[in-house]
Amino acid sequence: MEDVKIILNAQDMPTSWYNILPDLPTPMSPPLHPGTKQPVSPDDLKEIFPMGLILQEVSSDREIKIPEQVLEKYIIWRPTPLRRAKNLEKFLNTPAKIYFKDESVSPPGSHKPNTAVPQAYYNKLENTKKICTETGAGQWGSALAFACAQFGIECEVFMVRVSFDQKPYRKIMMQTWGANCIPSPSDLTKIGREILERNPDSPGSLGIAISEAIERAVGDSATKYALGSVLNHVLLHQTIIGLEAKKQLELIGEKPDVVIGCAGGGSNFAGLAVPFVRDKINGDKIDIYAVEPASCPTMTMGRYLYDFGDVAKSTPLLPMHTLGHSFIPPPVHAGGLRYHGMAPIVSKLIEEELIMPVSVPQLETFEAGINWARCEGFIPAPETTHAICYVIKEAKKAKEEGKEKTIIFSYSGHGLVDMAAYEAYMEGKLFNYSLSEEDIEKALEELKEFPTP
Amino acid sequence: MEDVKIILNAQDMPTSWYNILPDLPTPMSPPLHPGTKQPVSPDDLKEIFPMGLILQEVSSDREIKIPEQVLEKYIIWRPTPLRRAKNLEKFLNTPAKIYFKDESVSPPGSHKPNTAVPQAYYNKLENTKKICTETGAGQWGSALAFACAQFGIECEVFMVRVSFDQKPYRKIMMQTWGANCIPSPSDLTKIGREILERNPDSPGSLGIAISEAIERAVGDSATKYALGSVLNHVLLHQTIIGLEAKKQLELIGEKPDVVIGCAGGGSNFAGLAVPFVRDKINGDKIDIYAVEPASCPTMTMGRYLYDFGDVAKSTPLLPMHTLGHSFIPPPVHAGGLRYHGMAPIVSKLIEEELIMPVSVPQLETFEAGINWARCEGFIPAPETTHAICYVIKEAKKAKEEGKEKTIIFSYSGHGLVDMAAYEAYMEGKLFNYSLSEEDIEKALEELKEFPTP
Repeated sequence: MEDVKIILNAQDMPTSWYNILPDLPTPMSPPLHPGTKQPVSPDDLKEIFPMGLILQEVSSDREIKIPEQVLEKYIIWRPTPLRRAKNLEKFLNTPAKIYFKDESVSPPGSHKPNTAVPQAYYNKLENTKKICTETGAGQWGSALAFACAQFGIECEVFMVRVSFDQKPYRKIMMQTWGANCIPSPSDLTKIGREILERNPDSPGSLGIAISEAIERAVGDSATKYALGSVLNHVLLHQTIIGLEAKKQLELIGEKPDVVIGCAGGGSNFAGLAVPFVRDKINGDKIDIYAVEPASCPTMTMGRYLYDFGDVAKSTPLLPMHTLGHSFIPPPVHAGGLRYHGMAPIVSKLIEEELIMPVSVPQLETFEAGINWARCEGFIPAPETTHAICYVIKEAKKAKEEGKEKTIIFSYSGHGLVDMAAYEAYMEGKLFNYSLSEEDIEKALEELKEFPTP
Repeated sequence: MEDVKIILNAQDMPTSWYNILPDLPTPMSPPLHPGTKQPVSPDDLKEIFPMGLILQEVSSDREIKIPEQVLEKYIIWRPTPLRRAKNLEKFLNTPAKIYFKDESVSPPGSHKPNTAVPQAYYNKLENTKKICTETGAGQWGSALAFACAQFGIECEVFMVRVSFDQKPYRKIMMQTWGANCIPSPSDLTKIGREILERNPDSPGSLGIAISEAIERAVGDSATKYALGSVLNHVLLHQTIIGLEAKKQLELIGEKPDVVIGCAGGGSNFAGLAVPFVRDKINGDKIDIYAVEPASCPTMTMGRYLYDFGDVAKSTPLLPMHTLGHSFIPPPVHAGGLRYHGMAPIVSKLIEEELIMPVSVPQLETFEAGINWARCEGFIPAPETTHAICYVIKEAKKAKEEGKEKTIIFSYSGHGLVDMAAYEAYMEGKLFNYSLSEEDIEKALEELKEFPTP
């Protein structure tokens, strides 16, 4: 009986995160202040983030030590298993070997606590009493709720109204961990009240929820704000995924030919991929694919420009692939991939041609998810099915080419609280969506006055 | 940093199940034919079960080899981790060490696939094309759906109507694995049609669902029936839990003073406990507790009698602790513990005073579950919170007595698809239920003509 699960011992868990900034072929463009168009300084951010995280955001150290108190929490679910999808290989009759790094084993069921825990820790160090955040589908909000419970910090989550109503289980998870989950727009903030006054039935949006969370943090020194993707320090924390995976592959004498991850804001993809990008910079031949939904083709059809991180324009201007901050993605069920922009680090790696963005249509992703569940048992999150969908394409290509490729991908989360999406698919109620070049041009018009990175 | 997760390597996974029958101080009373009151023979059962399972049901071999093809499926999620609940220990300020065997990591999220997989395998060996079963809350039905997908067997699950409507996610999980999930009573069976004719709005019951599933299996040689608890072969398959746990405790040089599990039909409890009962028979001093809900006090208030396994009286008479086959437990949220009887093996161990039954009230179990989630991160199933509730009592007792006890319990499943129960608790909508001696006497009247074991 061959082992299909490669376990890393707790004492072999990485003790540093990997910061790719010093290894990039050319330096990143800095975030800009939207008023002055000058680079933002750490001081500009300290009202909403603790200094420990701000320093990580701009650090040029290659290795950043993981604090002992963070490792003590990571150990609740880390190191995560590296598994081999033998049944899927057999089903596809492919010579490719398919490995997946299983981030679904965390308490909230995704990779999100890899950054929620250190974010809560650094806030605790600086005496933050309450952290406010936004959440769309609820993965990030529930991860932060879990992390705040671990450090005894109050947690307030603004959840996009339509998701709050459609996905009640995520809200209850947050409450079980002691967090306060509020449908957004709410009457707790000025911006929320303004929107409710204009439209009492507003379904909300991630942009509005971000604005509400930031408003709650600004002007209260004991309250901070937290973001679950996009920023450098978030991607930094997620590199534990790839660092562990590299060790696990070494244990069995494997090196990947192909690395795959789904990308919404970019943190799960970068978490797995970035340590392998380093190997690629150092000369290894690896194909690295970031998979996005065809309905929200930030990387494959968007442009590399300066843009706001949110609809309400409350963030600095970030250098990133974007569809424009006013772009509203179609209502696909992979809520975590419905974001107009892409992490600046991921965007930079695309520009440097170190990684390759690809897109897949919604119906194909659910077909892939169901085949996966029937072969491998575990039911993947709708976001994760995007990676699986592309893995299947690569495995089929390996078969056609007769090549014994080694593929690794990030299994970013399980779908147990997203079953309604599977039902909608099986009942034939889902659609594919695509955008034309014209749609994109129109969406990007709002950025024409901005500098280019 | 101390390791709180004890991992067993795949190659150290037990390769036999443990059958306690030959080690019992006195022999088990046999199941009886309800008509003749004579012991049932293997032949009486072959219409609904494959012979491989029937032979395990009556085997007197101490060790029964796990087939290679079952081990190949177990490896998808086994060996499961043994974890230490350090944060809960700290929260309780107890000198007790609390270990939990984490059965929630399986694809359907509970211990149920430990028996679903071998049941599907033995059926496949004997060319079964379709397996029918019943499910209450859905844990068992989804486990069998997963197992049938692994072996390419058709799966038909009769789900109690009220649960079918209240817990849509479980149904969708079964469908995702390719099973057909039907609300019971249905018009697919004679008994179902009869009930619907009398009451078109019947909410269904486990008894009705069992009768429908058995009716579908009887008279079709390619279709069999499967049961998720109670029977000897089911408990046998679950002993992998305790066998693994013993190996894991040995790895860290620990021996348990206290073993705890929740018990509905008895399979999860027995799975962990029975290998330790063997040590107790051999002289070890271990306190072993089976925890049931105060609302369905089968072991603590029921009697050890012969009774039917189902409301519709379609099973043989089983020697067990029972509240009577017509007893309808109050609507507590631990659906898996709402069963009128108890596995004959567990009942026998109570009679032999090798294990001790205890009961806990519903509200206390949810309080325990929430404390657990905030300390340990993982959100437990409502059934599992019964074990946790008693673990907390034991840990507090250890503190009072100043004893450094080692406690191990079975973490039978996660609560991610049971979040509605947590919401009801947090909103103050749940109650405690208790029964009087008078209620019990009345419920048991229907058994007065039956022989005693």
